[in-house]
Amino acid sequence: MKLIGYFRSSAAFRVRIALNLKGIAVEHASRHLRKGEHRAPDYVAINPQKLVPALVLDDGQVMTQSLAILEYLEETHPNPPLLPKDPVERARVRSLALIPTADIHPIQNLRVMAYLREKYEQSEEGTFAWSRHWIETGFDAYEASVAKDRHTGTFSHGNVPTMADLCLVPQVFNAQRFKVDMKRYPTIQRIHDACMKHPAFDSAQPSKQPDAEP
Amino acid sequence: MKLIGYFRSSAAFRVRIALNLKGIAVEHASRHLRKGEHRAPDYVAINPQKLVPALVLDDGQVMTQSLAILEYLEETHPNPPLLPKDPVERARVRSLALIPTADIHPIQNLRVMAYLREKYEQSEEGTFAWSRHWIETGFDAYEASVAKDRHTGTFSHGNVPTMADLCLVPQVFNAQRFKVDMKRYPTIQRIHDACMKHPAFDSAQPSKQPDAEP
Repeated sequence: MKLIGYFRSSAAFRVRIALNLKGIAVEHASRHLRKGEHRAPDYVAINPQKLVPALVLDDGQVMTQSLAILEYLEETHPNPPLLPKDPVERARVRSLALIPTADIHPIQNLRVMAYLREKYEQSEEGTFAWSRHWIETGFDAYEASVAKDRHTGTFSHGNVPTMADLCLVPQVFNAQRFKVDMKRYPTIQRIHDACMKHPAFDSAQPSKQPDAEP
Repeated sequence: MKLIGYFRSSAAFRVRIALNLKGIAVEHASRHLRKGEHRAPDYVAINPQKLVPALVLDDGQVMTQSLAILEYLEETHPNPPLLPKDPVERARVRSLALIPTADIHPIQNLRVMAYLREKYEQSEEGTFAWSRHWIETGFDAYEASVAKDRHTGTFSHGNVPTMADLCLVPQVFNAQRFKVDMKRYPTIQRIHDACMKHPAFDSAQPSKQPDAEP
C-alpha cells in the first residue's frame, strides 16, 4: 500500500498514527499542498476530491477520506482495535472523532483560508482569527464531552488510544500553530500529552516526516 | 428512542432517512435552530456540542453526530444494510458520505453563515455565494467520483440506497435552497431523483416534518 499525504495535513497525520499503531508498513508519497500539487492532473485522476490523503492499495484501487481509511484499516487489521466493542461506546468514540474531522478542520483548512484571503481580503492575522474561532468552538464541545464523562480515561475513551485520539491530536497541533490558548482545555491537553508519549503518535507528527519543512 | 432534530437540519435529515429505511420507530422532538433553542442550557446539558441531531436511547444515554448515529444504527439494526460487505466497497461508500458530511455541510451551515454576517458584514447574497462555492466544490468532487465509476448504479453505490445517498440527498436540498445550478451535476441529480421516489427518503424531507415552516 502507498499513502499519499503531506507532512502538515491533519487528515494524513490521522492515518499515519493508525498505520503506526497497527504496525502496517506502507510506502509514503507526498503532494505539496502549498504548491498546489494536489490539483495536478495526475493526482486528480486518482483522487477527484483533490485532497490528501489517498491510500493506494497494491491492486491500484484508491481510497480517500481519512475517516473512511481509518474504518477500512480497522476492519481489515482489527488489532489493536481503534474502536471499543460495545455499540454505544463505539458511537461515543466516533462522535468525538467527528468533532475535529467534520466540525473543526474542514472549516479552517488551507483552502478555506485561501478563500478568505482572496474573497474577503483577510490578512494572515484575519485568517488566524477565523481558525482560532472554529478550533475554540469545537474544542469547547470536545472538552465538555470528555471532562466529566466516566468513559474518559488516560485517553479520550478508556486507557488505550482510539479513533478519537487519532483525530484529536492533529487538531491540537493545528491549534498550537494558530495560537489557541490551550489552558482553556485541560482535559484535551492532558490526553494530547499522553498520546505524544506513545511512539505511534510521536513518529507520525509533521516534523518527523520526510517531506517536512521548517 | 427519541431523535432530537430540526426539520431543516441536513444532519437530522440523514438520520431520519436511516430510521425510515430500517423501519425503526422513534419519538421525534425538535430544537428550533434559528431561535437558538440548541444553545439552551437543558439541551447543552445533554449535548455539549450544541448541534442537532441527538439520539436519546431508552436508558437515557445520548448519542451525537449524524455519522456516528448512522454507524450505530447499522451495527444494531443491520437490515437492510446501509453499507456493502466488502471492506474496499465500504470505504468507497464512507468516502462518498464524507464529502457532504465533512467537506461541504460544516463549511456552509447556519453557524458559519451567521459568523460571516457578523464578522465580515456579509449580506444574505454574500452568505449564499459562500454556500454555493463550497457546495459546488464538493459536488464537483462527488460528481467526478460517481460519474464514471463502475460501482455506481441507480444509487451512489449499486442499486440499493447506502450511507452515501443518505448524506447526499440532504445536501442537494441545501444546494437547491442556495440556488446551485444542478445541471452541472447530472449524476448527482439522477441519484437524488431515484432516492426521492423511495418512501423512506420522501417522508424524511424537511417539508414533511411536524416542525416544518414555510
